[in-house]
Amino acid sequence: MIDNFPRHISIIGLGLIGGSLGLALQASPLDIVVTGWDAHAASLEQALHTGAIEGAASSLAEGVSHSDLIIIATPVLAVRNVLEQIAPHLKPGAIVTDVASTKAQAVTWAQELLPSTTAFVGGHPMAGSEQHGIQNARADLFKGAMYCLTPVETTPRQVVALLKRLIEQIGAKPLQLSPETHDAYVAAVSHLPFVLSTALVRLTSGDPHWPEMRQLAATGYRDVTRLASGDPIMHRDICLTNTEAVRSRLLEMSRLLEEVATHMNDMVYLQTLFETARQERDVWLREREKR
Amino acid sequence: MIDNFPRHISIIGLGLIGGSLGLALQASPLDIVVTGWDAHAASLEQALHTGAIEGAASSLAEGVSHSDLIIIATPVLAVRNVLEQIAPHLKPGAIVTDVASTKAQAVTWAQELLPSTTAFVGGHPMAGSEQHGIQNARADLFKGAMYCLTPVETTPRQVVALLKRLIEQIGAKPLQLSPETHDAYVAAVSHLPFVLSTALVRLTSGDPHWPEMRQLAATGYRDVTRLASGDPIMHRDICLTNTEAVRSRLLEMSRLLEEVATHMNDMVYLQTLFETARQERDVWLREREKR
Repeated sequence: MIDNFPRHISIIGLGLIGGSLGLALQASPLDIVVTGWDAHAASLEQALHTGAIEGAASSLAEGVSHSDLIIIATPVLAVRNVLEQIAPHLKPGAIVTDVASTKAQAVTWAQELLPSTTAFVGGHPMAGSEQHGIQNARADLFKGAMYCLTPVETTPRQVVALLKRLIEQIGAKPLQLSPETHDAYVAAVSHLPFVLSTALVRLTSGDPHWPEMRQLAATGYRDVTRLASGDPIMHRDICLTNTEAVRSRLLEMSRLLEEVATHMNDMVYLQTLFETARQERDVWLREREKR
Repeated sequence: MIDNFPRHISIIGLGLIGGSLGLALQASPLDIVVTGWDAHAASLEQALHTGAIEGAASSLAEGVSHSDLIIIATPVLAVRNVLEQIAPHLKPGAIVTDVASTKAQAVTWAQELLPSTTAFVGGHPMAGSEQHGIQNARADLFKGAMYCLTPVETTPRQVVALLKRLIEQIGAKPLQLSPETHDAYVAAVSHLPFVLSTALVRLTSGDPHWPEMRQLAATGYRDVTRLASGDPIMHRDICLTNTEAVRSRLLEMSRLLEEVATHMNDMVYLQTLFETARQERDVWLREREKR
């Protein structure tokens, strides 16, 4: 099985990411059968209706017992529970991956809970939207996006190679790194941004003048706060499973804002700050466009 | 002149806002002549070429001497210089307004520098883009946007009424408030966001692992950092003219981030934080759509 593409893929959790993976896999030229399961009957039905999955499992156990590849696409904290429940029902040689935003915790749970005949590789597509749920799923959500894979030393190489090919089939770019490095990087470029976005809404909306003040909030406010409209459970779980890395970035940002505050009269400091940031962002944008 | 619309409007500074005002005024049904002036010959030429202005002044003095209404659309710090230069050449009864992002400072300069026969009303359209320059000017930039007017006690009421009608003609919504209230509000909903956006780029791009890390930065990072690509001079000038209000918001945010950092293990705190922010933003978004 490992040498070929998995024939039967099962997606557990049919929200924005799970549903989009289903649509993207179905749209690929792969000869596969995609089935799925979700705790919410309505999401399961809509996934069937939109063609994200071809078959709906009646239970988690049934959903994985015939699958060559299981993709867990639930919020981070639910991953542990799913691993525990599916472990006794997995086919020997089955591959399990997830799409959770933090990786060290999921990898540890998998080592603890899955049989040694099952290969687990943590996965994280760097795509999403503040529009969550199966109703916002799109086959092209992963087009051009990086898709992290976080194998450990004991992960069979063929399994990693297989997942990389699968990722390329849905238009994404596989990027291999350790679970710890992944978590440290996303704390800075993904988790810090959504906490900042949320903190900005909290600070402004907590002001006694907010009902008048918000009339002046325009497109800049809208964009910087976009991530504050993301799934609260997902954001909560990310903080709870990447605690130290996010905390350390928050404290770093807190100190940086204090530094900037002391330079509000310093023309040279301010100009350098704004010019350098613009240049750095431009470099990143250009690199991103080339991908 | 005050009872009717001004016939001759002059725009000083033809960047994104000045150029867009020209295009919007030309597209309105008003019976007006719009001319302009810019320190950069290239911007002046392009403004003529795109139809943002009908005539190009050969100097600041010439640009204002026949005008009924002068709109200063330069970065904040340049407003003082423009006021000083145009003061001796203004037609009696001329009205002067500006579009700078901070208002108390501009109003003070106007009181200092303009003849008493000239009415000055601070203005601030809550529209913009990180795409600056006349090449990005659009006639519909102000459609549905709030447009602040900050008259003082001595400002003739008819002048304020006239500017309100003009603002409505370009599709924006006039909002009258004092210069000080304006500056306090925008410190929170406009200036704090662009400093946060910039600080996030500085923090991440300053990391030794940035060249690898930035591969993981996705649409969330792109949106939260969008304002970091704004005009560095505009952002610098805003900080220099709204120093205390921005500083106080930055310190408030710094403390809030410290508070959040100490709750990274607190499930209830985190969930409430993310849920409340999402709700507050939704309320704001819905109110905004109704405008």
